Amino acid sequence: MPTPIEFYFDFSSPYAYLASEKIEALAARHGREVKFKPILLGAIFKVTGGAPLTEGLTAKGAYSVHDFARSARFQGTPFSLPNPFPIATVTAARAMLWLTRELPAHAAHFMHAVFRAYFADGRNISEPAVLAEVIRECGLDAERVLAGAAEPEIKDQLKAQVEGAIVRGVFGAPFMFVDGEAFWGHDRLPQIDRWLATGGF
Amino acid sequence: MPTPIEFYFDFSSPYAYLASEKIEALAARHGREVKFKPILLGAIFKVTGGAPLTEGLTAKGAYSVHDFARSARFQGTPFSLPNPFPIATVTAARAMLWLTRELPAHAAHFMHAVFRAYFADGRNISEPAVLAEVIRECGLDAERVLAGAAEPEIKDQLKAQVEGAIVRGVFGAPFMFVDGEAFWGHDRLPQIDRWLATGGF
Repeated sequence: MPTPIEFYFDFSSPYAYLASEKIEALAARHGREVKFKPILLGAIFKVTGGAPLTEGLTAKGAYSVHDFARSARFQGTPFSLPNPFPIATVTAARAMLWLTRELPAHAAHFMHAVFRAYFADGRNISEPAVLAEVIRECGLDAERVLAGAAEPEIKDQLKAQVEGAIVRGVFGAPFMFVDGEAFWGHDRLPQIDRWLATGGF
Repeated sequence: MPTPIEFYFDFSSPYAYLASEKIEALAARHGREVKFKPILLGAIFKVTGGAPLTEGLTAKGAYSVHDFARSARFQGTPFSLPNPFPIATVTAARAMLWLTRELPAHAAHFMHAVFRAYFADGRNISEPAVLAEVIRECGLDAERVLAGAAEPEIKDQLKAQVEGAIVRGVFGAPFMFVDGEAFWGHDRLPQIDRWLATGGF
């Protein structure tokens, strides 16, 4: 059984959202699965010295806002820059971890629902009430999932996942590993596609 | 006559080198020409707060070094990270400007020769003797070109080009404008291709 593609993401990353809409079909074409691993970019940036693309009134920030939307149109994914942006995604990340452990068949669906709620529909998924709504729309028990997300064990697991990501060299999102090979950014999906087809190049 | 694609580059940018190897064929497929515009990223970073990708011993720097070479293999372009890297490219940039004014038919050929000398063959084109060699290999008079590159008018023109780039929002390389639309990075060539085919999306 070939190893799954590891897909590190933060729910507040537009490029992670764009990649999340394409990675499973790409993986499936090569008989692979995807292991979705939530992280917190804020915690990673504290260590790596990175910053959100849109922080401050910079030319890069203005370009990025334009490029998010154009890249979304380019790949046919609904997108509208939410306000506020970026947001805290710790509760959604913990809920994702809990679901991955307890109801793994629902985890990917939940991830897509949260990403779309935020980046397609502009719903602020950092608010517990909004996140609960999205969980219910997935056909899940919001109180149970949010209680699970608050377990000390899950909190520790997220911390460990972030620390583990840093150790592996993750400094942004989406960050993907294919048989140990690191790829950063939704714009590396064509390279991943060829990597999977050829076993490396 | 459709307007040319404007291609801003620094001779020390690996991704600008990769894009430079593909942009003319892409443009030609859509009946466009390319206007190559040398800039100095060092001067731009001073204003925008940017930094070379490989500055410091960061995870992003290590990834970038790996990605330069992989992206080159992906597109079939010879590449080997030169040492030293990055380098000062002001003389090469001025020579490019002088050639664009005086011997425009030779400018693109010179640009490719300089990029390849540095990124394919590891020749340090920041050294005047090496740059002179490359100029001679282009069938040009090295003394004449380097004397032209030292003209006060050319120095002012490069300064103005860098300042103009900053005003237009250029913060990295390659940075390309297609009918006013800004694209940053060699990985945006597929978007440029569609933009030219459809008139925007």
